[in-house]
Amino acid sequence: MTEMYYLTPLTGIVGLVIAGLLLLTILKRSGGEGKVAEIADKIHRGAMVFMRREFKLIFAFAVAIAILILIFQDKAYATNQAIAFIFGCLASSFAGFVGMFTATKANVRTTLAAKEEGPASALSVAFFGGSVMGLTVAAMGLIGLGTLFWIFAGGEHKAHVADIMEGFAMGASLVALFYRVGGGIFTKAADVGADLVGKVEAGIPEDDPRNPGVIADNVGDNVGDVAGMGSDIFESYCGAQIATIAIAGAAAARVAETGGSALIDKLGASADKMDSLMYLPLALTTVGLFCSLLGILMVKLMSSKDPASALRIGTIGAAVIYIAAAFGVAGIFGLNTNVGIAVLCGAVGGIIIGLATEHYTGGQPVRDIAKQGETGVATIMISGLSVGLRSVAIPLITLAATIFISYSFAGLYGVGLAAVGMLGTVGITMAIDAYGPVADNAGGIAEMAAMGPETRKITDGLDAVGNTTAAIGKGFAIGAAGLAALALITAFIQKAEIPDFNLGDETVLSIFFVGLFLGGIVPFLNGAITMTAVGGAAFEMITEIRRQFREIPGLLEGKAEPETDKCVDIATKAATKKMILPALLAVGTPIIVGFGFNAIKPGYGAIALTGTLCGALLGCILLALMMSNSGGAWDNAKKYVEEGNHGGKGSDVHSACVVGDTVGDPFKDTSGPSMNIVINVMAIVSLVIAGLL
Amino acid sequence: MTEMYYLTPLTGIVGLVIAGLLLLTILKRSGGEGKVAEIADKIHRGAMVFMRREFKLIFAFAVAIAILILIFQDKAYATNQAIAFIFGCLASSFAGFVGMFTATKANVRTTLAAKEEGPASALSVAFFGGSVMGLTVAAMGLIGLGTLFWIFAGGEHKAHVADIMEGFAMGASLVALFYRVGGGIFTKAADVGADLVGKVEAGIPEDDPRNPGVIADNVGDNVGDVAGMGSDIFESYCGAQIATIAIAGAAAARVAETGGSALIDKLGASADKMDSLMYLPLALTTVGLFCSLLGILMVKLMSSKDPASALRIGTIGAAVIYIAAAFGVAGIFGLNTNVGIAVLCGAVGGIIIGLATEHYTGGQPVRDIAKQGETGVATIMISGLSVGLRSVAIPLITLAATIFISYSFAGLYGVGLAAVGMLGTVGITMAIDAYGPVADNAGGIAEMAAMGPETRKITDGLDAVGNTTAAIGKGFAIGAAGLAALALITAFIQKAEIPDFNLGDETVLSIFFVGLFLGGIVPFLNGAITMTAVGGAAFEMITEIRRQFREIPGLLEGKAEPETDKCVDIATKAATKKMILPALLAVGTPIIVGFGFNAIKPGYGAIALTGTLCGALLGCILLALMMSNSGGAWDNAKKYVEEGNHGGKGSDVHSACVVGDTVGDPFKDTSGPSMNIVINVMAIVSLVIAGLL
Repeated sequence: MTEMYYLTPLTGIVGLVIAGLLLLTILKRSGGEGKVAEIADKIHRGAMVFMRREFKLIFAFAVAIAILILIFQDKAYATNQAIAFIFGCLASSFAGFVGMFTATKANVRTTLAAKEEGPASALSVAFFGGSVMGLTVAAMGLIGLGTLFWIFAGGEHKAHVADIMEGFAMGASLVALFYRVGGGIFTKAADVGADLVGKVEAGIPEDDPRNPGVIADNVGDNVGDVAGMGSDIFESYCGAQIATIAIAGAAAARVAETGGSALIDKLGASADKMDSLMYLPLALTTVGLFCSLLGILMVKLMSSKDPASALRIGTIGAAVIYIAAAFGVAGIFGLNTNVGIAVLCGAVGGIIIGLATEHYTGGQPVRDIAKQGETGVATIMISGLSVGLRSVAIPLITLAATIFISYSFAGLYGVGLAAVGMLGTVGITMAIDAYGPVADNAGGIAEMAAMGPETRKITDGLDAVGNTTAAIGKGFAIGAAGLAALALITAFIQKAEIPDFNLGDETVLSIFFVGLFLGGIVPFLNGAITMTAVGGAAFEMITEIRRQFREIPGLLEGKAEPETDKCVDIATKAATKKMILPALLAVGTPIIVGFGFNAIKPGYGAIALTGTLCGALLGCILLALMMSNSGGAWDNAKKYVEEGNHGGKGSDVHSACVVGDTVGDPFKDTSGPSMNIVINVMAIVSLVIAGLL
Repeated sequence: MTEMYYLTPLTGIVGLVIAGLLLLTILKRSGGEGKVAEIADKIHRGAMVFMRREFKLIFAFAVAIAILILIFQDKAYATNQAIAFIFGCLASSFAGFVGMFTATKANVRTTLAAKEEGPASALSVAFFGGSVMGLTVAAMGLIGLGTLFWIFAGGEHKAHVADIMEGFAMGASLVALFYRVGGGIFTKAADVGADLVGKVEAGIPEDDPRNPGVIADNVGDNVGDVAGMGSDIFESYCGAQIATIAIAGAAAARVAETGGSALIDKLGASADKMDSLMYLPLALTTVGLFCSLLGILMVKLMSSKDPASALRIGTIGAAVIYIAAAFGVAGIFGLNTNVGIAVLCGAVGGIIIGLATEHYTGGQPVRDIAKQGETGVATIMISGLSVGLRSVAIPLITLAATIFISYSFAGLYGVGLAAVGMLGTVGITMAIDAYGPVADNAGGIAEMAAMGPETRKITDGLDAVGNTTAAIGKGFAIGAAGLAALALITAFIQKAEIPDFNLGDETVLSIFFVGLFLGGIVPFLNGAITMTAVGGAAFEMITEIRRQFREIPGLLEGKAEPETDKCVDIATKAATKKMILPALLAVGTPIIVGFGFNAIKPGYGAIALTGTLCGALLGCILLALMMSNSGGAWDNAKKYVEEGNHGGKGSDVHSACVVGDTVGDPFKDTSGPSMNIVINVMAIVSLVIAGLL
């Protein structure tokens, strides 16, 4: 088995090379000239400013945390864990950087392809732009995790390979905090700021080049759905694999002691197969990268057809091949079909959650909300919140069923495999997520550069498809984050080795409940903080845009250039400043609960922390779904009215829907997605400190 | 010890007699004549129509459930449990009936006292009206629980006294579903319907007698805060005591087996004191009734001073005496001070949660929300939701601390005692809750009967105090419901006797997580259902009011009488129809999870159900706090603007605040409070079926 380990990082490198080739085909195209090139360049530079700023901060934090690991982690593997942590930060940052670089090069080229060659070419360019991000995320995961596993699982550190790899996951989490939480604040501050002054006060259209905030707004689209979503998925992707490896590691330790375990019976394995079980999650994601490549190829081949079906065939095709491959890999590893069933569970679960999200943010519920607009804003709010609240049911039942079935077939290891199953074809699912902002930006550029209605129509078509896929992707990301966090929490409980963790015991039950209540606070507080963070930042932005309209002579007449960099700057600063509190909440809670209760009585810490993780996990998934789906539903209700229903644009119903959308923006783009990060950060921090409790 | 048991029901009867005397002093006053008497009579009759209708339905359901108990409960105590269940239904219904009867007699007499004798008399009448309800709730609890305990704990059924009493709690829960959940729908349907057509469309003032919906609106105030709040508190009050008795019973069984237990060591008791431990919760509430009486006396004596301080001194005075008395009772029972500390914990915890509620719904956060109105409705919504989200932190930390400290001093039994401590002075806390709608109605009658600004000023002053105390009462009710449910869940876990309930075990952990995820759905789904229930009912109401304005000639000119009964009827029908789904959700979930998972494998049911209860408990408390506090904050932000801030009435900020208030109404008066009932119903149903799992 050991001699196969190198295949994973090698596959990662192959993926990276293909991503590079795709990037080259994009860059080979003309970036336009004159006004178009100038606007595109501004967006690109804005994106790079954001990434550089964030990276500097990430680097400073990473060094500080690495030093803390070296000081406080008293285990022999501390140094390797710290190195893995830095490696994780770099891997995720690199993926984010490549994705942002590509997306802000592909956007203008999509516009030009739409103008000069038609929809099929435009789809290809936009989708290739997304694919570079998708492949890089998957590849960096394989390179990072694969290399660590290759080095440490084969050698003297074998017993601690999972511990070391947890450092990598923590690095991924740190980056996700900056890109996803900070990025969410950036996006919405820019969006709200630009829209309010531009559309409402100055009366100029969306994406008008005279608006100083419009570049920041376009940068924000990329920050949210490329860097943010990418780091979120990367974190879940790594977390799921590491948790599964840790669960397998714990099983291996038991097998070494007792000579057998329920797990190896379930999987039809034998005691000498424990190495295979530990490597299996990596083997699956390795195969998954090839499946994603096939999926990307399918989209390319179908690109002359309707874009929506091209993307759907690519995603589902990749998933089907992946599931079949999982059964094959299990067979090669000498394991029975239970492995494949667990993977199947996760993959199917992910699709169901995605489809449920699509329904609540695009189906009948959206039309119902729009109808409520006839009785005013209040009923829009009530019905939108109600849609969000009830949208949690199907995803949570699906998650519960996924856990139950995958557990029944392959134990807790199976739950980990289900998470790996859900995230196995990340290469293509992430590609489709990242495609969204490229298409969106392409439209923005067409508008700003006044390229005519024909071009705009094509990009709008691409954008509409992107919105639907983004909704599915968001639901999918929440499901995957939840399952990955659950696997990490499971690994934490096993690692903490709490003696007699019996809920029938009075002490255990009380401490568990105390932890549960404390954990439930975290998502709600995080929601409150992130929602209002946008408000403050948007306000600064509004003030700056007003100042420019007032002080720059000729700006509104189109005779002078706005100082767009200043707006990017304000949003970036706000993003980094306002993400500190949520980050402290996520990182600090497990540390305070764990060590605090241990200070009261040794052993209490791990019990209380288990309760806290349960409460936070449940709360984060519930609020993430509710907020994302309410927000998505309000957004689409507005669009539905704009299509001419209930009086169309300019009607009272429309203004009511605009309010819904404004409330929904921080819901779906800031607070909701930040929940994924918060719970995963909490889980990974807990796992890292588990040995100390 | 046994010979003291009769003291509890006897005290209950004393309480009831005093309540009767207070009612007589109210009825002795003139009910006015002419227009005033007519309006008051309409409200009174409307209230009685609602109560009679609901009672008929409750009775039908009760008989059906009692038969189900007799069929499916295979234990020897089934008949007694069924009888206790019917008894519980009757006790809670009676308390609600008395409260509603009194409140709708006291309202007009408060108006007349305000007009003829001034503020002190008006306060006395209104507060006595509330006190009748407060005392009846406490007294019916003592009579019901005390009698059951007296009969069964002294005789051959001693081992099953808690099981039998659970029937009583289930009866209380059934009534709470109708009065609190159904009542919440009634209140808001009437409120929204009357306001929208009356104020907005017809342009007539609030509480105008020409509006056909205005009587239903005034009835609704009583339904929500008298019958609804009363049945909610009654349920928690009984649940807390029964859970504590059940925990003591389980400890007694252990002591009988092993001769000792950790609990008796903690409390400085001995093995022969187990009867005392079982009776202690009842002894505490028995003493609590006297403390409430003293509190009511204090309010009466202080009534010539500022009403706010009179009410505050009464509540806090009663609590202080009660805590001191708890230490005394423990001493008499031969127990150490740990008992008193647990009671103290609960009482102080309740006050902290109440004060936190007051802050979030009346302090700086409210002014911040109003300020956000300057940038429109969207920012009002975002800031209000954010206030609600962050308002969960202090109450949950308080609950966690209450659990931790009371557990440390007196085990899980102590957690039960803390709940009893929080609810011990229900006589006065409930009196103050029920005072609110009396004062509110008094103002409404003054307006409708055109009694002049002087009278209205006095009643407005009383009403303002009522609003603050109502906010505190709501927070307090959530805290108490949460703690009572927690105690019930604890009793459930002990009763289910799950062997090896070890979260370190893979199977237990998986099944627990599956249950947790399913449980988390319940509060969110309940929120979605109850929020939209109001919409449908309000719509019917609007249609009916519009019809009357259109079809009854001379109505708007004040020359014809509106058909107010029809509006009461619509709201009542809607209330009963729309509460079925939430009721099924609350009752059905534990049954489906418990028996469903047991069908998969015996033993899974209890584990999954524990998870479900944990998830639902956490979700219900979080959403209850968030929704009630957001709603309260929006309401008061509107009032703050109406006081002349940010442009005052008629300004843009004011219209933005009105939208906030409209969204907040179902939050704070329907969905939020229904969470208390849902979790307690789930817990009590689980406890009843625990023996069958």
